[in-house]
Amino acid sequence: MQLQCPMPKLDFDVITLGHGSGGVLTNKLLDSGVFDVLSNPILDERHDGAIFQLEGKMAFSTDSFLVSPIFFPGGNIGELAVNGTVNDLAMCGAIPKYLSLSFIIEEGLKVSEFWEILIAIKGACEEAGVHVVTGDTKVVEKGKGDKIFINTSGVGSIHSKANISAKNIKAGDKIIVSGNIASHGMAIMSVREGLEFDSEILSDTINLNHTISSLLDSFGEHIHLLTDPTRGGIATVLKETAQSINLGIDMAQRDLPIDNQVASACELLGLDPIYVANEGLFIAFVDASIADDFLEALHKDENGANAKIIGTVTEEHPKQVIMESAIGGKRVVSMLPGEQLPRIC
Amino acid sequence: MQLQCPMPKLDFDVITLGHGSGGVLTNKLLDSGVFDVLSNPILDERHDGAIFQLEGKMAFSTDSFLVSPIFFPGGNIGELAVNGTVNDLAMCGAIPKYLSLSFIIEEGLKVSEFWEILIAIKGACEEAGVHVVTGDTKVVEKGKGDKIFINTSGVGSIHSKANISAKNIKAGDKIIVSGNIASHGMAIMSVREGLEFDSEILSDTINLNHTISSLLDSFGEHIHLLTDPTRGGIATVLKETAQSINLGIDMAQRDLPIDNQVASACELLGLDPIYVANEGLFIAFVDASIADDFLEALHKDENGANAKIIGTVTEEHPKQVIMESAIGGKRVVSMLPGEQLPRIC
Repeated sequence: MQLQCPMPKLDFDVITLGHGSGGVLTNKLLDSGVFDVLSNPILDERHDGAIFQLEGKMAFSTDSFLVSPIFFPGGNIGELAVNGTVNDLAMCGAIPKYLSLSFIIEEGLKVSEFWEILIAIKGACEEAGVHVVTGDTKVVEKGKGDKIFINTSGVGSIHSKANISAKNIKAGDKIIVSGNIASHGMAIMSVREGLEFDSEILSDTINLNHTISSLLDSFGEHIHLLTDPTRGGIATVLKETAQSINLGIDMAQRDLPIDNQVASACELLGLDPIYVANEGLFIAFVDASIADDFLEALHKDENGANAKIIGTVTEEHPKQVIMESAIGGKRVVSMLPGEQLPRIC
Repeated sequence: MQLQCPMPKLDFDVITLGHGSGGVLTNKLLDSGVFDVLSNPILDERHDGAIFQLEGKMAFSTDSFLVSPIFFPGGNIGELAVNGTVNDLAMCGAIPKYLSLSFIIEEGLKVSEFWEILIAIKGACEEAGVHVVTGDTKVVEKGKGDKIFINTSGVGSIHSKANISAKNIKAGDKIIVSGNIASHGMAIMSVREGLEFDSEILSDTINLNHTISSLLDSFGEHIHLLTDPTRGGIATVLKETAQSINLGIDMAQRDLPIDNQVASACELLGLDPIYVANEGLFIAFVDASIADDFLEALHKDENGANAKIIGTVTEEHPKQVIMESAIGGKRVVSMLPGEQLPRIC
């Protein structure tokens, strides 16, 4: 991808405070390739905001990304920022359409790094089928930020067959996770801790909108809730969901799909994978009647090969998530109690 | 305002990394009052994104705010973040409706400061008539941020009579500024530099959406362009506009409305007020036939008492802004060349 977008020749090689001034230097930075790389008719208007039309009900979501390091096995902060908001929209049952993109850059960031991030943003947008239509660029002094933070917000149109709400969940619903857990968090941790494995642990950052859209085509309102277990891991979203629906969740540790190396890395670092962040994963609460078909459809999707049914909603123990452990005992699953992995996304 | 929203009793008085974990502590922080203070039916769903319907064409805008200091004469970063995005939407000819709100907090921020900012956000939302419907809270380590950065993005419906685009500007159009220039920048600078005046210089941070909406009611498509001269000041937006429309702009320094104390402060610090940031100001390019009526309407509006016609669009000197100076000479106005006032918004 980078080969198709060589970095423009510039007379500066690091970003300075002036590039966030809103004046000549900001324009120079943006005209050096940012507008060209992300070009589309709405963005090209270069007004204070974007103007467009969306039909029907819409979804709107936001996320700020401050992952450290900004480059990690399997991706960088740029594609993470696009995929993160695209996936939040998909979790609402929406077809993501337009993104905003806001940079908070620490002075001294190398232009070559900025460019690499920008190209990753472009690539992720193309894969997801979304367009950056409005943005903002700010720069903070050295020591008042950390290389680059990125906020993306996004809007999309709700899929005509979608009716996603925790209120639709009922006892008996099956809980499906779309793939191996804990990959993103352990990819970041393995870099931070300098761990080496037979093969590198890669972040699972990926867009899920095409997968979700085709599942909604087939299963419509039988999909009751979609949610992506990012910070806090699958444990936190399951517990939050149980609390909000006033029902219980039963699950078993043996049903959780996890890559062997990721499991080893977790063990080595004393981390419980159910609390480790994911970036390309979703959890679906679906009507029991379609659960097997849903799983089969997911298995045929490139993002769902390792999908599994991991639990069931129950009227027993409302608000509690109970997990049968590998050796047969039962434990109550809480949300992530403290801070496990700061700056994971 | 603060008296009506006393801070909840909490068992922590500073924000820690755990409050950005996405787990128990994040929920504790959000449940300590954030969700209550900003409550509305869409936000209360607490899903990964907000779901709602907007009619017709819409506008979408984003801005990250990293003003320093976060509390300044006339406001704080909270209301600045709301008003900034509300005004960007208004500049598109939109009625702002829904905002996203994303916090990047440096660990160690006092909860009392966070609360004061939150209350300012609530107040600014109420005044503008907008709702925060989705959000995100992240925390960075000490020394990797600066107290708090806030991103707001927003969506709104385009006013039925609005047709705002630089493409509509033609030679002869009058350029109107809605009030005194340079107040926000000098309010921030006076704090940073410890300047004292007879009375304090206050930021002009305010929402402009109601003013714009009523002007659109009256003057519709005769309003060709609206733009707010924030970073880079009025000089930068006028120069950017002249470049994009391939026409020239004639203006005179004597026509620029400016508060005496602000003018003195600029002189003292050697700053040219045409480059100083504004937060509650807009510039309108309007058809010459309605310019006087537009000005009269603005003078009756609480945000337009000091409005003035400051220039004219001309076919002469395309892409150039030429300003007659106070003593009669003419100068070419460029964009803000370097960085004048970092972290001004």
